[in-house]
Amino acid sequence: MAEQGPAFDFFTISNLWLLLSAALVFIMHLGFSTVESGLCQSKNTNNILFKNVFIVCMGVLSYAVWGYNAMYPGDGWALGEFFAMGKPIETWTGSALTYDYGKTALCMTQLTDFLFQAMFAATAATIVSGAVAERVKLGSFMIYAVLLVTFAYPVTGSWQWGAGWLADAGFKDFAGSTLVHAFGGFAALAAVIVLGPRKGKFLSDGRVKPILPHSLPLATIGVFLLFLGWFGFNGGSVLSASPGPVSLVFVTTTLAGCAGGIAAIFASWILLKKPDLSMALNGILAGLVGITAGADTVGVGSAALIGAIAGVIVVFSVLFFDKIKIDDPVGAISVHGVCGIWGTLAVGIFSMNEAHTVAKQALGTFSVSAFAFVFSLILAIALKVTIGIRVSAEEEMRGLDVEEHGSPAYHFGQDATELG
Amino acid sequence: MAEQGPAFDFFTISNLWLLLSAALVFIMHLGFSTVESGLCQSKNTNNILFKNVFIVCMGVLSYAVWGYNAMYPGDGWALGEFFAMGKPIETWTGSALTYDYGKTALCMTQLTDFLFQAMFAATAATIVSGAVAERVKLGSFMIYAVLLVTFAYPVTGSWQWGAGWLADAGFKDFAGSTLVHAFGGFAALAAVIVLGPRKGKFLSDGRVKPILPHSLPLATIGVFLLFLGWFGFNGGSVLSASPGPVSLVFVTTTLAGCAGGIAAIFASWILLKKPDLSMALNGILAGLVGITAGADTVGVGSAALIGAIAGVIVVFSVLFFDKIKIDDPVGAISVHGVCGIWGTLAVGIFSMNEAHTVAKQALGTFSVSAFAFVFSLILAIALKVTIGIRVSAEEEMRGLDVEEHGSPAYHFGQDATELG
Amino acid sequence: MAEQGPAFDFFTISNLWLLLSAALVFIMHLGFSTVESGLCQSKNTNNILFKNVFIVCMGVLSYAVWGYNAMYPGDGWALGEFFAMGKPIETWTGSALTYDYGKTALCMTQLTDFLFQAMFAATAATIVSGAVAERVKLGSFMIYAVLLVTFAYPVTGSWQWGAGWLADAGFKDFAGSTLVHAFGGFAALAAVIVLGPRKGKFLSDGRVKPILPHSLPLATIGVFLLFLGWFGFNGGSVLSASPGPVSLVFVTTTLAGCAGGIAAIFASWILLKKPDLSMALNGILAGLVGITAGADTVGVGSAALIGAIAGVIVVFSVLFFDKIKIDDPVGAISVHGVCGIWGTLAVGIFSMNEAHTVAKQALGTFSVSAFAFVFSLILAIALKVTIGIRVSAEEEMRGLDVEEHGSPAYHFGQDATELG
Repeated sequence: MAEQGPAFDFFTISNLWLLLSAALVFIMHLGFSTVESGLCQSKNTNNILFKNVFIVCMGVLSYAVWGYNAMYPGDGWALGEFFAMGKPIETWTGSALTYDYGKTALCMTQLTDFLFQAMFAATAATIVSGAVAERVKLGSFMIYAVLLVTFAYPVTGSWQWGAGWLADAGFKDFAGSTLVHAFGGFAALAAVIVLGPRKGKFLSDGRVKPILPHSLPLATIGVFLLFLGWFGFNGGSVLSASPGPVSLVFVTTTLAGCAGGIAAIFASWILLKKPDLSMALNGILAGLVGITAGADTVGVGSAALIGAIAGVIVVFSVLFFDKIKIDDPVGAISVHGVCGIWGTLAVGIFSMNEAHTVAKQALGTFSVSAFAFVFSLILAIALKVTIGIRVSAEEEMRGLDVEEHGSPAYHFGQDATELG
Repeated sequence: MAEQGPAFDFFTISNLWLLLSAALVFIMHLGFSTVESGLCQSKNTNNILFKNVFIVCMGVLSYAVWGYNAMYPGDGWALGEFFAMGKPIETWTGSALTYDYGKTALCMTQLTDFLFQAMFAATAATIVSGAVAERVKLGSFMIYAVLLVTFAYPVTGSWQWGAGWLADAGFKDFAGSTLVHAFGGFAALAAVIVLGPRKGKFLSDGRVKPILPHSLPLATIGVFLLFLGWFGFNGGSVLSASPGPVSLVFVTTTLAGCAGGIAAIFASWILLKKPDLSMALNGILAGLVGITAGADTVGVGSAALIGAIAGVIVVFSVLFFDKIKIDDPVGAISVHGVCGIWGTLAVGIFSMNEAHTVAKQALGTFSVSAFAFVFSLILAIALKVTIGIRVSAEEEMRGLDVEEHGSPAYHFGQDATELG
Repeated sequence: MAEQGPAFDFFTISNLWLLLSAALVFIMHLGFSTVESGLCQSKNTNNILFKNVFIVCMGVLSYAVWGYNAMYPGDGWALGEFFAMGKPIETWTGSALTYDYGKTALCMTQLTDFLFQAMFAATAATIVSGAVAERVKLGSFMIYAVLLVTFAYPVTGSWQWGAGWLADAGFKDFAGSTLVHAFGGFAALAAVIVLGPRKGKFLSDGRVKPILPHSLPLATIGVFLLFLGWFGFNGGSVLSASPGPVSLVFVTTTLAGCAGGIAAIFASWILLKKPDLSMALNGILAGLVGITAGADTVGVGSAALIGAIAGVIVVFSVLFFDKIKIDDPVGAISVHGVCGIWGTLAVGIFSMNEAHTVAKQALGTFSVSAFAFVFSLILAIALKVTIGIRVSAEEEMRGLDVEEHGSPAYHFGQDATELG
């Protein structure tokens, strides 16, 4: 009983922290919504917000009905350690709500475990949403998102976090540089290749036309909210409130994000000759994506270095994808895909744990990225040849807000002028 | 002492969780501010923000001076178990800050208890604020809000949470589907009836003119922040950090909100032939309002069902009120009033506890809603026949920002053009 | 062991609370970004956001490399108890992550301690950022901010929180009315004096031209986020999760902020004859700044009174600085400087602890404010006579966004018109 007391309190603290982490990851979806809409054109804002609202609602529900149990199958694999069938989560009766579920090993109830993971799941589709923005057909994207989040994301998730073959192979991905970010980034790359660039982005004379963000305040709000949410994303991935690990993760996460921002500011200033806010914002995100795989296993100096390198990488990567005519309006492929791989490999370089090697990390990140790319490619092509994946040129020019939703996102001042 | 130790830690965790919950409910006021201003016209934005800032500041202060003790009278009833007088909260000396206040029964200090409840109180007026927006006279609304929050809200609150006659009758309202939301929604209905619709909303030929939201990003920010805050609103209503109940409440709340969003998306798509973001947002809120009465006592499947039904109800309800020429710019009556009643009745249907019945639930929700409606009706009429409750047609057309506040909410680009 | 158990749990809760507090203070930087950009003109929004993003990233990094150890030198003073050299924080090996660092005296790991303090550090420059907005040269401001945050802020911080000479003198500044807010406010005053007012603000005929805020929703979002963050700023300054003190601090903070808002609403309404949202928002911030020095040591009634007085002071102060032609676009000098001094002195008047006197408080707040003013004055003059501190009149008129960053912050609707 004297033992039980403290253990129960530690369980209670940890369970609360995981629920708070779930709430913090939830608010990342507002971050994604505002970054994506802020960096795109005003005429597509309603559409972008609608997609994001749909994704988070659908993602949580589908994870309850299928994804959670497909990703954490226990011994219930259907195919080696590669694939498991999903099924609905348990209801509140049974052990899903008691200390007995996790005891002192996994310090939370099963419902908390579910909720924390559910908040991650929708992210995969959210990342794609940014890359395909401003020309994807709404209905097709919704089908794409449902299938990606429900069926594809839990597969690669199970390989590692569900104790599948990658976990056996010694792969390390603390909070998802690969399982969440590279997954989303490479799914996005495939979708963008199938979809093609926005009209007018790549001119016939070889020039790349900048399509300006419509609201930098919205984009900035988004990045700060994502940074905030990352405290839960990474901090909650400790899976308890244990002081040492949680403190370390908070600090490595913060330093990497800040270093990514500073590095991107100066890298882009040198390359573009201007202090560029969008690049600074993407640099912060790049640093955060970069540290996510190893936030609990690198020192604070290494964390800053990983973030700074990510901040430089993202600048070059954004320019590179422009060069090869891959049109990604928000830089999602660079931020999440390229820096997700960088962060995963960086664990092999900087980890305090010698068991982590670049080779093991490469195996994990490339196999997950390849799966995401191939799944997304097949799905996008299937949609393209059936119901179509892209709006008409006319709709694209007029904007998806009016064309698909019948209403612009903004309506300034017209009423005032009615008077005159 | 060995017993005391763990109890003290549990008390500490729980007290912290309730304070965090208060902070989360606080941020709901930003959510209400941005939803309401986003869904209304740009020319009334300054006015709407001003009202909301006033309400939250005034609401907390009046709750400290009167409301808290009127709502939680202990044995100090003035009239049966129907009404108690208020008085200021205790200062920090005394037992208001110690373990002895709540011990292991109510695991928080009295000041924490006060703060958590204070953050709820202002909500009643905030809900009304949305429904009467764009034509209510500022001074009259401020008087209305003070009286509603200070005197009316604690009365019905005391009936249930203050251990009054409704609590004795076996009524169940976990976190306020009725005591907060239906209260606000039916107060709003009465105020809107007295106030009348906005000019130009209902045309003489029977058509209903849509008055477009001026900023969907603002509205979306608001709904995400409300969803976030609801984790504190419902999760804090457990009144401790006890792992099982808090986990269950987080999960039921999330599933209901997400199911409400998805249901409203498809219901409105079918009815209106367009994917409608405003309806999706109101669907999320409807699901959250719906689950609030029973978040701790229904299973996770039931929670999703309650939310989905709320999401359908809100779509029909919004269209219904348009049809009967009740003009509610943000849908507050439908979201908070109608879905507040639905959520309360749903406890009688879905609760795991057989003591909860639809009859008891109906008694509670209708008596509270009726009190709110009648109080608000009398107050609104009194204001109308004395100082007036509505701005002039001229002011309404020009917008309340310039007319009442002397300044628009937005000022874009004019300075740049000064140059040319 | 029976003792250790509870102590460890209390340590765990407290460490988690301090990490959450760090996250809450982090989001204040988004609050500052949106308040400042909202209250300024649209043509300078990109610039303002860029500055704020830079400051937070740079501030955390420089605090890791120098500031933390300069501010908390232990016995390692370089010059009396007035100045200590900085050095990088320890990496995660060693005792920085264990219970042994703080035990039951300072209930957190050293990395948590660092992170919480790091989030405060950047604030000093953020406050200045608001006052010098719309005409400061970007590169010069960046150098200014680096030097202020890295070298100046830890000096005065060490005087009090680093157990230096002010702590010995019996000065009380709970969470930084002086060390953070008055420091920033008086650094801002010096910088504004060197910089001069915006073109067109003070007309030659003596009139003061109001330069309208470009987005009141942004400003309102900012103030609510700052209020939210203040729960961590003040609540975390308890340095544990001890129920009594944390509850008291939450309640005094809330009441002071709300009272500041209400007092400013009515004071400005009387003076300006209009209900003024900007004044209401600054009143809330004034109340929060005012309570920050004594949030743990005054009663709840005193807290409301301190806040209300701050709310009145800020209205008169803003008008006063306009009168003497000190141009502070966001009111930062009044909110943070003047009300920072007020709040610090108020501890001498209202504290429950008789050891606190107005004389000791005056010594502390005036010496810190004077140091900040002089440091900032010298630095600003040095920048002015070398690389220049102000943009050209032409750049100021066209806006810093296009001139310094090559891109406006907003881009509405142009694309839609391309069609026609």
